[in-house]
Amino acid sequence: LELLSPRVYAPVLTPFTPELAPDAARFVTFCRWLTAQGAGLAIFGTNSEANSLSLRERLTLLDKVIDGGIDPARLMPGTGACALPDAIELSRHALARGCSRVLVLPPFFYKAVDDDGLFDYYARLVDGVQSTALRLYLYHIPQVSGVAITHALIERLITRYPQNVVGIKDSSGDWSNTEKMLERFPDFEIFPASETLLSRALPLGAAGCISATANLQPGAIADYIARWRSPDAAAIAQRMEAVRATLQKYSMIAALKHVVAQFQDDPQWRVVRPPLRMLDDTTGRQVVDALRALGFDMAGLGRDGRKA
Amino acid sequence: LELLSPRVYAPVLTPFTPELAPDAARFVTFCRWLTAQGAGLAIFGTNSEANSLSLRERLTLLDKVIDGGIDPARLMPGTGACALPDAIELSRHALARGCSRVLVLPPFFYKAVDDDGLFDYYARLVDGVQSTALRLYLYHIPQVSGVAITHALIERLITRYPQNVVGIKDSSGDWSNTEKMLERFPDFEIFPASETLLSRALPLGAAGCISATANLQPGAIADYIARWRSPDAAAIAQRMEAVRATLQKYSMIAALKHVVAQFQDDPQWRVVRPPLRMLDDTTGRQVVDALRALGFDMAGLGRDGRKA
Repeated sequence: LELLSPRVYAPVLTPFTPELAPDAARFVTFCRWLTAQGAGLAIFGTNSEANSLSLRERLTLLDKVIDGGIDPARLMPGTGACALPDAIELSRHALARGCSRVLVLPPFFYKAVDDDGLFDYYARLVDGVQSTALRLYLYHIPQVSGVAITHALIERLITRYPQNVVGIKDSSGDWSNTEKMLERFPDFEIFPASETLLSRALPLGAAGCISATANLQPGAIADYIARWRSPDAAAIAQRMEAVRATLQKYSMIAALKHVVAQFQDDPQWRVVRPPLRMLDDTTGRQVVDALRALGFDMAGLGRDGRKA
Repeated sequence: LELLSPRVYAPVLTPFTPELAPDAARFVTFCRWLTAQGAGLAIFGTNSEANSLSLRERLTLLDKVIDGGIDPARLMPGTGACALPDAIELSRHALARGCSRVLVLPPFFYKAVDDDGLFDYYARLVDGVQSTALRLYLYHIPQVSGVAITHALIERLITRYPQNVVGIKDSSGDWSNTEKMLERFPDFEIFPASETLLSRALPLGAAGCISATANLQPGAIADYIARWRSPDAAAIAQRMEAVRATLQKYSMIAALKHVVAQFQDDPQWRVVRPPLRMLDDTTGRQVVDALRALGFDMAGLGRDGRKA
């Protein structure tokens, strides 16, 4: 069963209508394409603009994804929130809909909180969810959340909840942090947040990756994970990393949406919620041209992708 | 009418039950005491643990405060949120209950957002609230929110919404920022976040202050604001600033709650929501002893304060 778990997750982009409402039909269609490429769906992540969605919008969108036929075993919804009751409600709802895996930000308003407070928060969350099926992944993205998940905190949580706290997404971009975690917690499912770290992380036992650019190249990343020991791994990595490097020169979420809009021939996909801003046309064209120069494509998405 | 506006606001502490539910009865009682001392009520601020409350809890608590007899003209509820629909809903609800003044954090999850994105967010909020009665105060607390309100952003907002965007709480603690705003925006209502800045800010036209420690010494601050030109102002300031300096040595919210618990003889008041932690008994005793050594008291709160 473990072998069937997704090893590459896309923090799925959330499409909006021109009036800024979540567009469930486009969302489900995109989820289907990602799934067909072999990706798991870390919906409601940073790249999903999850914190720009209301609680109600997150509950409803999850329902629509599952009602739309996506297997809950492919999902790892983000259920973190500053308010503990919100995190409990989102997590319970995910579990009720068959999603065991949830990815949970620390509460991110207060800064300089200590491990005791974060332990208390996560412990009350696990206790509040009240489900033995819960598989909670911590979310370490200190440069955005402002609140780090320390190794000491991980140690305390997995000691208390060995069946429920099972992994982490490390979005720090700090390889030494990822490396130390891989050494210290060999049974923990550790996902770096970029495919460019896979060549170093997989030999040390990383579970896979949860990467922004998995929205664009899920198949390439899945392929690399399947074949990283093979002779052609270096060639796959080179192309995969070039795509990533291109995107990283731009405002990531807006750029990803612009690329999807372009390859799906659907300008509405460019819409973001404030405080984010969509790319201007000139910048958007630069991103797309740079990707095309690399031979990048989003096969199977095309215009058909617009049909929900 | 302007003269009747509160000039000192307390970012009102939110009491919780031992099970961590908001305790509306204790909250209303405390709001009454603050009001009787001359303070306005900036409920749902940073010191209120507002971002640790769900949307529903914030809506309900505001209802209970107003249903409990607090004049909405004394209130300046915090209605900011990462998700624009939440900020709109909270603000509309406040307006519907008669609160014209709202204090609005910028969306605080994404960092390094630019003024265009923040302008778009606030503009859509004002447009979404659809009330000429709206009096929006910006909330600049970059060391916590991670998102600064620049002077250029203020300029754009007051140019577009001169009747609606009327002031700011400057919690940066950076006097040069406050001073420059007071010079550049003479008609803007500017509230530094500490009573220790009043002696410099009031001569330059500050509206007053919105201060954590106004939860403990609202009367002293109101008194200082009323008499800052009088010969005894220096003596009032000295005592007021000593109280503030004492509290600042500790974890502020937990310390404030401990002090209220002590002077109200009501240990439940110490409860905070995670990720915050309550003070341990020893530290709590230190705070209280240090305040008592300054002759500090919370007259009129006492045990009666427990009756809702």
